[in-house]
Amino acid sequence: MFSPVYETRVLDAGYRNWKRLYLDEFWAVQRAHLAGLAERGIVDAATARAVGRAVDELQASIAWPEQIPPDTEDLYFHFEKELGLKVGHERAAFLHTARSRNDMDNTVFRLCLKKKLADLARELLVALCDFIARARETSGDLTILFTHGQPANVSTMGHYLSAFAGDFAQDLRGLLESIDAVDRSTMGACAITGTGFPLDRARVAELLGFPGMVTNTYRAISSTHWLTRPAAAIEELLRDYTRIAADLLHKASSEVGLVSFPDSLIQISSIMPQKRNPVIIEHIRIQAGLAAAASASVGELMRNVPYQDVNEASDAPVSVLIDSLAMASSATALLREALLNVRPNDERVRQIALAFGVTTTELADTLVRREGIGFRDAHAACSAFAGSGGDKATLRAAFAKSCGRKLALTDAEIEEALSPEGFVAVRKVEGGPAPEGMAPVFGELDSWASDCAAAIAAIDARNEEARAALAEAWARIVA
Amino acid sequence: MFSPVYETRVLDAGYRNWKRLYLDEFWAVQRAHLAGLAERGIVDAATARAVGRAVDELQASIAWPEQIPPDTEDLYFHFEKELGLKVGHERAAFLHTARSRNDMDNTVFRLCLKKKLADLARELLVALCDFIARARETSGDLTILFTHGQPANVSTMGHYLSAFAGDFAQDLRGLLESIDAVDRSTMGACAITGTGFPLDRARVAELLGFPGMVTNTYRAISSTHWLTRPAAAIEELLRDYTRIAADLLHKASSEVGLVSFPDSLIQISSIMPQKRNPVIIEHIRIQAGLAAAASASVGELMRNVPYQDVNEASDAPVSVLIDSLAMASSATALLREALLNVRPNDERVRQIALAFGVTTTELADTLVRREGIGFRDAHAACSAFAGSGGDKATLRAAFAKSCGRKLALTDAEIEEALSPEGFVAVRKVEGGPAPEGMAPVFGELDSWASDCAAAIAAIDARNEEARAALAEAWARIVA
Amino acid sequence: MFSPVYETRVLDAGYRNWKRLYLDEFWAVQRAHLAGLAERGIVDAATARAVGRAVDELQASIAWPEQIPPDTEDLYFHFEKELGLKVGHERAAFLHTARSRNDMDNTVFRLCLKKKLADLARELLVALCDFIARARETSGDLTILFTHGQPANVSTMGHYLSAFAGDFAQDLRGLLESIDAVDRSTMGACAITGTGFPLDRARVAELLGFPGMVTNTYRAISSTHWLTRPAAAIEELLRDYTRIAADLLHKASSEVGLVSFPDSLIQISSIMPQKRNPVIIEHIRIQAGLAAAASASVGELMRNVPYQDVNEASDAPVSVLIDSLAMASSATALLREALLNVRPNDERVRQIALAFGVTTTELADTLVRREGIGFRDAHAACSAFAGSGGDKATLRAAFAKSCGRKLALTDAEIEEALSPEGFVAVRKVEGGPAPEGMAPVFGELDSWASDCAAAIAAIDARNEEARAALAEAWARIVA
Amino acid sequence: MFSPVYETRVLDAGYRNWKRLYLDEFWAVQRAHLAGLAERGIVDAATARAVGRAVDELQASIAWPEQIPPDTEDLYFHFEKELGLKVGHERAAFLHTARSRNDMDNTVFRLCLKKKLADLARELLVALCDFIARARETSGDLTILFTHGQPANVSTMGHYLSAFAGDFAQDLRGLLESIDAVDRSTMGACAITGTGFPLDRARVAELLGFPGMVTNTYRAISSTHWLTRPAAAIEELLRDYTRIAADLLHKASSEVGLVSFPDSLIQISSIMPQKRNPVIIEHIRIQAGLAAAASASVGELMRNVPYQDVNEASDAPVSVLIDSLAMASSATALLREALLNVRPNDERVRQIALAFGVTTTELADTLVRREGIGFRDAHAACSAFAGSGGDKATLRAAFAKSCGRKLALTDAEIEEALSPEGFVAVRKVEGGPAPEGMAPVFGELDSWASDCAAAIAAIDARNEEARAALAEAWARIVA
Repeated sequence: MFSPVYETRVLDAGYRNWKRLYLDEFWAVQRAHLAGLAERGIVDAATARAVGRAVDELQASIAWPEQIPPDTEDLYFHFEKELGLKVGHERAAFLHTARSRNDMDNTVFRLCLKKKLADLARELLVALCDFIARARETSGDLTILFTHGQPANVSTMGHYLSAFAGDFAQDLRGLLESIDAVDRSTMGACAITGTGFPLDRARVAELLGFPGMVTNTYRAISSTHWLTRPAAAIEELLRDYTRIAADLLHKASSEVGLVSFPDSLIQISSIMPQKRNPVIIEHIRIQAGLAAAASASVGELMRNVPYQDVNEASDAPVSVLIDSLAMASSATALLREALLNVRPNDERVRQIALAFGVTTTELADTLVRREGIGFRDAHAACSAFAGSGGDKATLRAAFAKSCGRKLALTDAEIEEALSPEGFVAVRKVEGGPAPEGMAPVFGELDSWASDCAAAIAAIDARNEEARAALAEAWARIVA
Repeated sequence: MFSPVYETRVLDAGYRNWKRLYLDEFWAVQRAHLAGLAERGIVDAATARAVGRAVDELQASIAWPEQIPPDTEDLYFHFEKELGLKVGHERAAFLHTARSRNDMDNTVFRLCLKKKLADLARELLVALCDFIARARETSGDLTILFTHGQPANVSTMGHYLSAFAGDFAQDLRGLLESIDAVDRSTMGACAITGTGFPLDRARVAELLGFPGMVTNTYRAISSTHWLTRPAAAIEELLRDYTRIAADLLHKASSEVGLVSFPDSLIQISSIMPQKRNPVIIEHIRIQAGLAAAASASVGELMRNVPYQDVNEASDAPVSVLIDSLAMASSATALLREALLNVRPNDERVRQIALAFGVTTTELADTLVRREGIGFRDAHAACSAFAGSGGDKATLRAAFAKSCGRKLALTDAEIEEALSPEGFVAVRKVEGGPAPEGMAPVFGELDSWASDCAAAIAAIDARNEEARAALAEAWARIVA
Repeated sequence: MFSPVYETRVLDAGYRNWKRLYLDEFWAVQRAHLAGLAERGIVDAATARAVGRAVDELQASIAWPEQIPPDTEDLYFHFEKELGLKVGHERAAFLHTARSRNDMDNTVFRLCLKKKLADLARELLVALCDFIARARETSGDLTILFTHGQPANVSTMGHYLSAFAGDFAQDLRGLLESIDAVDRSTMGACAITGTGFPLDRARVAELLGFPGMVTNTYRAISSTHWLTRPAAAIEELLRDYTRIAADLLHKASSEVGLVSFPDSLIQISSIMPQKRNPVIIEHIRIQAGLAAAASASVGELMRNVPYQDVNEASDAPVSVLIDSLAMASSATALLREALLNVRPNDERVRQIALAFGVTTTELADTLVRREGIGFRDAHAACSAFAGSGGDKATLRAAFAKSCGRKLALTDAEIEEALSPEGFVAVRKVEGGPAPEGMAPVFGELDSWASDCAAAIAAIDARNEEARAALAEAWARIVA
Repeated sequence: MFSPVYETRVLDAGYRNWKRLYLDEFWAVQRAHLAGLAERGIVDAATARAVGRAVDELQASIAWPEQIPPDTEDLYFHFEKELGLKVGHERAAFLHTARSRNDMDNTVFRLCLKKKLADLARELLVALCDFIARARETSGDLTILFTHGQPANVSTMGHYLSAFAGDFAQDLRGLLESIDAVDRSTMGACAITGTGFPLDRARVAELLGFPGMVTNTYRAISSTHWLTRPAAAIEELLRDYTRIAADLLHKASSEVGLVSFPDSLIQISSIMPQKRNPVIIEHIRIQAGLAAAASASVGELMRNVPYQDVNEASDAPVSVLIDSLAMASSATALLREALLNVRPNDERVRQIALAFGVTTTELADTLVRREGIGFRDAHAACSAFAGSGGDKATLRAAFAKSCGRKLALTDAEIEEALSPEGFVAVRKVEGGPAPEGMAPVFGELDSWASDCAAAIAAIDARNEEARAALAEAWARIVA
């Protein structure tokens, strides 16, 4: 008899996690393992058929109890007991040949986590494609970009959004790479040293849709990379959400007003119609922060834990990680909603550009390029110009004084150099906001999006093939 | 005049970081940028020659002041002033054409961080090769492996060490992959939007040994992935050190005694010669923990920081990250010393195997395989056997009772099944401790080590080519 | 119309949190605020009576919709609408005089968090008293205590358990102190600057059971100490759980065997009856780790968040913190179960003491005290003795050789000095394991437990008085 | 012979930490312990005198080697050897009677950490008093306060700064309370179980300036609260710095412009004189973040570490914590510089108040209070008024329409209600920005500051008494 405290706080809690999250994968692993045993003749055909049919019946009919049955360690033991009632306990026991709960549970957790990570990756890919499209759409919309919280340069919304899309794409790639640490079968590792039975580990891996296995059987059970690497990738991703949120909150604040959001994303004041609180951005920051912390907690849990089979790689932490993905998904939905609906404000761009002289540096560069003077002279003239509040006569006088000749630029050329449009248009350097600069940016983003799509498609394809192969193998067993 | 508090706590602290860590890269960037300007004709040949020669002279002769000179923002401004004294301030200013401190500093930091990461990767590769070699050497040395702190299976030291080596290899791969986020030039991004001057960003990247650039100029300055990804990789790596340390502390404890360390790694008691404290293992745990926290702090710093150019990507945090690599290197040296010197204790393996019946499960499997019975019968017989303290007659009686026939296995065969050597020898499944199981483990490890070696060699080769290309380009300028 | 994404991911999620956790406190705050308004005449008696009766009716009858109603920001707005339906919207609006959702929500969250923290504190106090009692019971049971994982001294279970109880008591005190940061009313702070209405903030605080208020109205809304300080206290507490768990896992491991657990806390192997896995200890480590991380995540969330009213101090993070208390409670229940059931093993104490000579240092001290020799001579003699495997003749010879005279101690006295009981008995120094040393330890623990009990009782008493005072005030309003 | 890796990475690193940080406390502990031994007669007077004199000579003359001498575990062993050379090794050994390096080192670390924490607390107290004074000075300077990044209410700088000062005061109190966990002697705990020698632990504690001891000898050595509690307090404190920094960055941004900083704290652009980058605020955020992480790392290090004597409570982590205090001190100096020099901008307050109608809510409250109407009517009228851009005729018309009578308020009264000064003046509620509201805020702050001053003074007084008592006791020994 287990202590009631232990039963409630550990065994039943685990049982509920299993019922809530891992049943699909649980059944798949039973089938793949039995197929593996049968194909290698480790279990004879008659036993395999009987057990296989009982598995089929049970999956169709089992009613999992609300709470863990008395004196039962886990969901598997309850299953085994039920299987025994159908096919006889001695026969039922053959299903557990050449495996242990260690490798079985570990493989189930990996399958489920992979599925959930792939689901999140799919959502992120949709968001990425949307962000790229939105950046393309807004490539002609002017904005002001900031450094250290101060207005620094004119640019375009497309330039800004594509910068974030680049980091976002790298985060998605990081997440997809981390799936590689998850996507390995550990079946056949048994407790920790494998088995004397002649298993074909690669075949079982294939039937479950894994591209490979964790070879070393001790590492298969003891490594926690399959948890910590996705957790770190999620944390990286979500940290970027908090950064774009902090920047958008500034850009959308009443006094800055460079961007705004539609009414559907705004909480308003009954009395002050001009107050438009984009609280959604704050919630991106919060949800991303909470989800990142929940993911990260799984990594931190491993510190100073013996390099052995430990329950840190078991249902409670795995479930925390999986649940953090749902929070990450929520934060992603909010971010996508915000970025697809953010609206530039051309008028404020011009006001701020003027008020803070953000294009004056370009005038100095123009003087250097077009008048062939040095930077000190150019800066002196532009500084006088800025100090005068933008008086061209002051500029001309200052130029004449330091260069000893008349400024050749016409007033129109000066205005061109100072205009937000001009500021953007000359920035053709690779990665700059002019169309020529943006072309390689979009090229790169498209190619990253396609790489990500291909990686997700590969996972899907392997799953599809595995489902077919397992169905076929199973049919031979129960035939 | 800067406030003395600001000057001491920020400007001088930054200046000292620059002098301590970034000078080599600082000079390289001055040269590559001037070469880029000259090759594109942005600066005329005469100016480029004069500035280039002054750079040469200055690098040979400059005596950096102990502390930051008064009214100087940073080391670069001091350099620019000194350059001006040599070549005239107007000419000196041309060196800063088409760049800003933003892209310049960022590129310097990336170059230095890349160098330090590559240095650490080289040390890790040496350690990895040593671990693989040590695992090969100890493939025949028996040990006991544990699950949940309890003795579970007999295996070999080679099986155990190669499991850890597998995780370690993946950590090294992760670190090398993270270098990719660092190894991108940001020159030409200028403040955040690039420039109107016709720079060739790819050429400057090449002259500095980068395989590419961060294309989007805003992302070049705003992204912090080049800090957070290596930081996460370091944290992953070092967490594994704490796990192997926790496990070795258990295995080396007086009562367990499965492994020991030579006197050179032991602190002894003057009075109790049998006390042998392998304190080195505790220090691996501590140094790894402190280094991981220092690395991780750089990632955490980015939370909720606006997606802009911010000083989080500047000298103070970059220097904390770089200094954490030295701590990681120290922890690595300790770990290598420990794993290369750990000694198995065959006698304790046999004592523990016997005392805790860790091979009895194999006897049950053998009964299933050799006698063709089911698991329930096999377990019942083995349980009786274990309960009797290993009495073969009890086993035979229990077998006869449940199976209704005599046990065919001879006493020698029973002993073989129960022997630690036999336990290992049958585990031929891929990744198991028998030689047949270990072959693919070592194959994989060797191939991972070679991938890592190739990645490091590629970085080195690019650096070598870049040094040559820059020297050649520079020679043309100053000729 | 809110965006469906925003409605689902933010508004409805918040609404569900409110329904799940905050309703009791919501109603209390409505009543206390109306009482405050009525007592100060800010709302006239007739309006107060009408609104008060409608509040009573609504609390008795309201059926909260499953999900947030369309175009409703939060639960309060739904309540206000329902209240308006009962009493007229204009009258209903008077309830919101001189307050804002900011101070109302903040006070509701503080009340609920305080209640949950007090509940946890009560459980911890029960556990503390149990730990002290268990330490007293086991004051005569010998054990071995370790330093750096090696057996170091003989002591008693009571000495060991009371050490942990001391840290645990300090953690509970820390938690109770942290409640002080929560237990302050913020009613009357309104949005952030208070109000022009002549509220009596202290009276409303009193009606809600607070011992005081956050005086500065901006701080009332902007401070997050009421979340971060309990979070830090919880993290401190739970970190200690992981330390005692790590130590118990070692002491309970098969090879050490100094402590064991009853069958009700053990998972056994069907085949290996001597394997007794105290997996409960691992789950203490894991649950404590996950709960600590969840608590800590709320603190980390505040980094770089503007010192303003922010949603970090709102329902989502507050609910995460509250939910982490349930996890902490589960970990506490497991720890209590383990410590109340841990059993010493006298035989292993003697075996280990002998095998590792853990009492030999006491023999050296005895030689110094009784024979009046120095430590170097004493250590030399004892070292020879230990090296001989405990041969008294060797000891006598070594003594004679270095001291030039016969050892006066009799064999019985030598054995007494070496006996575990003797080792403990001489350690009468304050805090040592002898009864004389333990008396002040238990005195201190009892006094700490009573301080904690008094702090909890004070919270309960204030709540009781507040309930009575509010009922009385309310009766006057609705009469 | 120690392994060179171990010697360099662990022993020498520790030796350098000792030389750099702990020498003063090392000598104090030698003296207090010898005094304790002599006073109890555990060491005879002649030996005590000889050893005492040798200690005096050694402290005056010892030249600590640059690096750790060969085959030496730590600085203490080198000291003991040197002491032996002066007074004979046998006599020197008596100094180590009834103690171990465990209690000696632990007490040294506690003394040093306490000193450094008290130093930081003193700096924080100066800053607190300055913040309170600055808040008083600016109690009449108007500002706008924000919620969720949007302008919400008019208030005063004094109201704002005193809110932060309140949180800061609580952080300082938390830090001072955490010193209580440090400020306990562990001398006499010896290895972990005390000693059979009749030490007076309380007397030694008193001679070292401790108000008490850690009673349980096992807890004295195993607890890490003396590290984790100050670390948590530092983290709490510094997190608040990041919040005020984030808020000041917003208020000081070009577009908001509610506050500014003098030139001495600003980095300017040579070309754009109107750009004024208060980079100091960003550096507060960064330094606070890095210091907080370094402090926190010491707490995190303890996770899953056995509850035993472990090196986590030894020189490396203690030194990291102590070094983090210097970073915290730097961040504090920057914050103080910023808050003492921040300047309000009255003109921007009025512009923003007008543009975003931040006082309109007060007009609605005034209508309710003065016209006796309900909130719905008041809000409708004010909303019309705000929508009209502040046209009083519109207000009067809307009022008449919904209330069926003329608005009684005069134009002057409307303006009074809308004026920033009026908005502040009516907020007399406790903790509101009017002078009547601020009086209790300042009263509380003054009393908190005095409590903190008293706590620091108590530490200083105990240290002073201890120095005198130790000098007197020492004089008796060496006389």
